[in-house]
Amino acid sequence: MKILIDTYGADKGEKVLVDGAIKAQEKRNFTPVFVGNKDKIEELIDGRIKDYEIIHTDEFISNDEDPARAIRRKKNASIVLAFEKSKEEGYDGVLSAGSTGALLAGGLFIAKRIKGIDRACLATSLPTLGETTLLMDTGANMDCKKEFLEEFGLMGKVYLENVLNIENPKIGLLNVGVEEHKGNKLAKETYALLKEANLNFVGNIEARDLFTGKVNVILADGFDGNIAIKTAEGIFSLMGKELKDVFYKSLSNKLAAGILKKDLKSMFNKFSADEVGGAPLLGVKSYAYKAHGNANEIAISNAILGLMDYIDKNVIEKIEGELI
Amino acid sequence: MKILIDTYGADKGEKVLVDGAIKAQEKRNFTPVFVGNKDKIEELIDGRIKDYEIIHTDEFISNDEDPARAIRRKKNASIVLAFEKSKEEGYDGVLSAGSTGALLAGGLFIAKRIKGIDRACLATSLPTLGETTLLMDTGANMDCKKEFLEEFGLMGKVYLENVLNIENPKIGLLNVGVEEHKGNKLAKETYALLKEANLNFVGNIEARDLFTGKVNVILADGFDGNIAIKTAEGIFSLMGKELKDVFYKSLSNKLAAGILKKDLKSMFNKFSADEVGGAPLLGVKSYAYKAHGNANEIAISNAILGLMDYIDKNVIEKIEGELI
Repeated sequence: MKILIDTYGADKGEKVLVDGAIKAQEKRNFTPVFVGNKDKIEELIDGRIKDYEIIHTDEFISNDEDPARAIRRKKNASIVLAFEKSKEEGYDGVLSAGSTGALLAGGLFIAKRIKGIDRACLATSLPTLGETTLLMDTGANMDCKKEFLEEFGLMGKVYLENVLNIENPKIGLLNVGVEEHKGNKLAKETYALLKEANLNFVGNIEARDLFTGKVNVILADGFDGNIAIKTAEGIFSLMGKELKDVFYKSLSNKLAAGILKKDLKSMFNKFSADEVGGAPLLGVKSYAYKAHGNANEIAISNAILGLMDYIDKNVIEKIEGELI
Repeated sequence: MKILIDTYGADKGEKVLVDGAIKAQEKRNFTPVFVGNKDKIEELIDGRIKDYEIIHTDEFISNDEDPARAIRRKKNASIVLAFEKSKEEGYDGVLSAGSTGALLAGGLFIAKRIKGIDRACLATSLPTLGETTLLMDTGANMDCKKEFLEEFGLMGKVYLENVLNIENPKIGLLNVGVEEHKGNKLAKETYALLKEANLNFVGNIEARDLFTGKVNVILADGFDGNIAIKTAEGIFSLMGKELKDVFYKSLSNKLAAGILKKDLKSMFNKFSADEVGGAPLLGVKSYAYKAHGNANEIAISNAILGLMDYIDKNVIEKIEGELI
């Protein structure tokens, strides 16, 4: 299997992408196809692996650019070259830790949408106390129509059934209350549509239940989904800081924290974005995966492995099958 | 000062409202005017205080009802009677832990809007590492226009300057990125409007910065604001549970947790909604405060004290003054 890896866009630079790919290759056989500066990449690989390809470019799309315009104009941007190549036989998927907008625009304008799908979206796995929960969308589509959310539900269902073996996944709608009449215009309209849809729709989910694992898919427009995951990140990091303050407050606290350290670390890891590593971009005709901008090499490695699972299960063909 | 206290609507029943009022009376002199079932309230007071009034009713508006319709039809609902009374000389403010929608509808239809204000909103204090931050709106207005958010900003400014003595408060816009071009239609339009407004607008705030205290007001429509605070509640409660699991995992963990207990408790208290107790409903001509549905008596007591500060500073008159 050949995985195209955009080496631009990670907060920590090309190194995490190269190291992450090498780490993933220790776990599963595949050929990383690095897209980026050839010299830099070879220097970073430093002879550690033999099985790789490089597509050289110095051009990339940053977070500050208008993604749709940049995708059309920057013909040699790393994400553009990666998506172009992904259409060729033998190149199986695209991984990027760069601009979400550029990934989405590349998916839409180069890979193109799956026939019958209006919008592509990111399906982010949430850390939960219960069942696997995907939040869709988490940032690809800012202003959604109810039909888009229904499509997200359908794609989430196919993804979960095939990649994660969850039968008849429960679909919920992110809303400000559980009652049917609650919410903004979009939420009310979507509720009415989902009630009639061929999905296992279980009703509204309040944001405080995002992490309790009550349902397998939580539908939201990309603005709200993004607000939710970034709020969670914010409070998570705040609590981490506050805990550290408590642990360093006194010598006795330090000793007590030392005893708890290992268990606390594994608890924090459970909620770390690194475990999942990334999110599939569903709805386009290439297998594409978005890693977090501040991913480390473990996150990148897990994202690559997740992307390969996604490719193995032919999810794109199965989504197409559902739409016929 | 006389404070009208709707005794219906708290998850824990009338008791928390009565006990909270008694607790507040220990700290500051005022007359609670309980609105609810007379016998029940007197039984709960049980002779502990002498200075109080009761407005008897058995009718109330629940969370399941359409608030606007219920406010018009249920002439004897506790929140209706409270708002009616608040218009009389000598009755200074309204506290409710019940349906947010009913509080808002009561404010709009009975107290009426401040002239020049299109929408009333809830201004919720966030726990932060830095400066005081109000999130506005957190659930009163589901579908907002850009002008509403500008109004929220103006009201937040007046509230903070007067009640919390924060000079020229910094106003931010909740968005999915810091760049000006980011966001949904409402966010982009609001950004453009706020740039020209007579406010100390400092730009977009990502949800991960809700709790870092970078700004004093974060503007959002009520849907998004509600998603944000409930997400924070969810992850906070999840982390609390997970920490407990770590602490009870082994005897040595239990001993270590025992050492940290006091400091952890005070850390968790810092983030507890009980400290602030409630949020002012800004934009209507009565002083009204919303306590959390699952408030305990400490939260209710703090909410009553906060409401009295709000009344002391004549914020309504000052908002009116800004609009002339």
